[in-house]
Amino acid sequence: MPEFSYESDPVFQMHRGGKIEITASVPVTGPDDLSMAYTPGVARVCTAIADQPELARTYTWVANTVAVVSDGTAVLGLGDIGPAGAMPVMEGKALLFKNFGGVDAVPICLACTDVDELVETVARLAPSFGGINLEDISAPRCFEVEDRLREQLDIPVFHDDQHGTAIVTLAALRNAARLVGRDLGELRAVVAGAGASGVAVARILLRAGIGDVAVSDRKGLVYQGRDGLNPVKAELAEITNRAGLTGSTESALHGADVFIGLSGATVAESAIAAMAPDSIVFALSNPDPEIHPERARAHARVVATGRSDFPNQINNVLAFPGVFRGALDVRAAQITEAMKLAAAGAIAALVGDDLAPDHVIPGPFEIGRAHV
Amino acid sequence: MPEFSYESDPVFQMHRGGKIEITASVPVTGPDDLSMAYTPGVARVCTAIADQPELARTYTWVANTVAVVSDGTAVLGLGDIGPAGAMPVMEGKALLFKNFGGVDAVPICLACTDVDELVETVARLAPSFGGINLEDISAPRCFEVEDRLREQLDIPVFHDDQHGTAIVTLAALRNAARLVGRDLGELRAVVAGAGASGVAVARILLRAGIGDVAVSDRKGLVYQGRDGLNPVKAELAEITNRAGLTGSTESALHGADVFIGLSGATVAESAIAAMAPDSIVFALSNPDPEIHPERARAHARVVATGRSDFPNQINNVLAFPGVFRGALDVRAAQITEAMKLAAAGAIAALVGDDLAPDHVIPGPFEIGRAHV
Repeated sequence: MPEFSYESDPVFQMHRGGKIEITASVPVTGPDDLSMAYTPGVARVCTAIADQPELARTYTWVANTVAVVSDGTAVLGLGDIGPAGAMPVMEGKALLFKNFGGVDAVPICLACTDVDELVETVARLAPSFGGINLEDISAPRCFEVEDRLREQLDIPVFHDDQHGTAIVTLAALRNAARLVGRDLGELRAVVAGAGASGVAVARILLRAGIGDVAVSDRKGLVYQGRDGLNPVKAELAEITNRAGLTGSTESALHGADVFIGLSGATVAESAIAAMAPDSIVFALSNPDPEIHPERARAHARVVATGRSDFPNQINNVLAFPGVFRGALDVRAAQITEAMKLAAAGAIAALVGDDLAPDHVIPGPFEIGRAHV
Repeated sequence: MPEFSYESDPVFQMHRGGKIEITASVPVTGPDDLSMAYTPGVARVCTAIADQPELARTYTWVANTVAVVSDGTAVLGLGDIGPAGAMPVMEGKALLFKNFGGVDAVPICLACTDVDELVETVARLAPSFGGINLEDISAPRCFEVEDRLREQLDIPVFHDDQHGTAIVTLAALRNAARLVGRDLGELRAVVAGAGASGVAVARILLRAGIGDVAVSDRKGLVYQGRDGLNPVKAELAEITNRAGLTGSTESALHGADVFIGLSGATVAESAIAAMAPDSIVFALSNPDPEIHPERARAHARVVATGRSDFPNQINNVLAFPGVFRGALDVRAAQITEAMKLAAAGAIAALVGDDLAPDHVIPGPFEIGRAHV
């Protein structure tokens, strides 16, 4: 297929030549600049850092730089499209890191998918960066990759598909609960999807004190004793679904207060109708929500999606630029659970008095550009 | 040692926060931009590239991006100072790539030094870049790392310590030979130093048709049959030193036309005085040339150094930005020997009618900024 066939599409036009570039932040206009930015002057900075490695955080761009690392195995809703195909997303992420957080992010798409290889490769890259944002790595490998890197490295490691989604979902749920006048501890939630985002959302809701949360995968609800659970789901079975529900997502929705869809599957309108009064429905699959938001709105008090063309968009861009901005500014060695909860609280608070069923979460441009 | 002690040094002031940054090359000022640069629009670009990976060269920044990769084992004259200490140099290189070649270069300092690990790590990173510039990796590992990556990858791999130095040295030597009215084929050269740059200089001089070249290391001249030569030096012994000289660098200089110092050692003034009439002396070690250029000038017709504060600076920055600029523009799969010779010829030609003993090579700012 000749390239020109893409050129009528404004999206391809925008992507031509890429969306980010490297620019100089110091002038190099003559020999004096050259002898300071490069040899011989630079040798003094090298020697100082070799003696005191933490000075790299003061005198190199590592201070403000994050690697956006993917293996291309779970890109958007497209699945395993490989590292080359993943690059436009990682580059887009880098663009948003700068635009919304003032963070210099470098897209790194790796030609390996084995957990050991991913971990060792990122660990070898680590001296070049102030943080690692993992992205679009398929479950369950993503959990082990993140856990092992967090253990090995002394810079923040953050799998955005997990924690970005979890933070923004919790922020929206806090406001939705406030709107319906309930505490999180009174709510029973059902999460459809036990991939990276489903697992992370269940975990953060528990940490935030949700009453109960049950998680389902393609085989139905995850519960203790279910056959063939992988280690991540087995752990999930222990900490979720205190009611011990079995069966389908839809059966669990009967009388539930909150539905969070992160599965790509659909949910029947009748199941949404069978939820408790003042129900909260976050149908977050993209591009096709688990239930059309207008259908859901007929039964639920608050409806959110992952899409920009409906109200209440649950969008990771509300979280990752600011989370890393803060982590880099304080030179945090990791992004802790407390930091994630604080981020969710801060995002929720931005809505303030403008809380409404169609406004439980701010839009990306409501927050504006923190650093440019 | 508290940080503030560095702040009185303008070099440290210049390096504070780093010398490069990532900037957006497309606007993201509202939801429409976001839906084109990121989801949902970006999915179309991802799908197209997954189907036709070469489209990454059109629709991502890979088109114009080079990784500047080091393991920190041979940084400037500082030696093995590790990946953190190497970062200011790699960042400086990235700055020069952009300033002089319009190339987006990303500094990557790796926490591994094993040849297999370096090769596999760079190979895994390769989908993220349009070229690989290896830098400050100690000999002889650097030769194997480059050779294996050149074989494995379909993007240019260029070890600048070797080929950048070789290209600029050949450019200067072409002009020096023109000045003294000799052909390269009539000249006998002695290269002190059998590290990355010494080996590469000897090789390019042979390809350019030098009469003869002998190379010395710490043990003296490299010749066929010398005990304990590593594979690189054994190959060097086969193709260099046709006269079969043994003994010291200084003994070989007797009657030689060209001296090229890349060793860090010193050379006695008497040895320079014993060279043939109209001799050419490139004392390239930094910061201390093998012989002070004013001493050398008492005996030689042309003297060059690696320093910016003497005439005729042999500076890699004349080569690497333009070499990669050209390679990226034509989407070259590698940087061939013919391309290196052409680069040397092009750099030499820039001097034109301004040829003089103190001007056999242009300064970096004479060429100016090709792309900014």
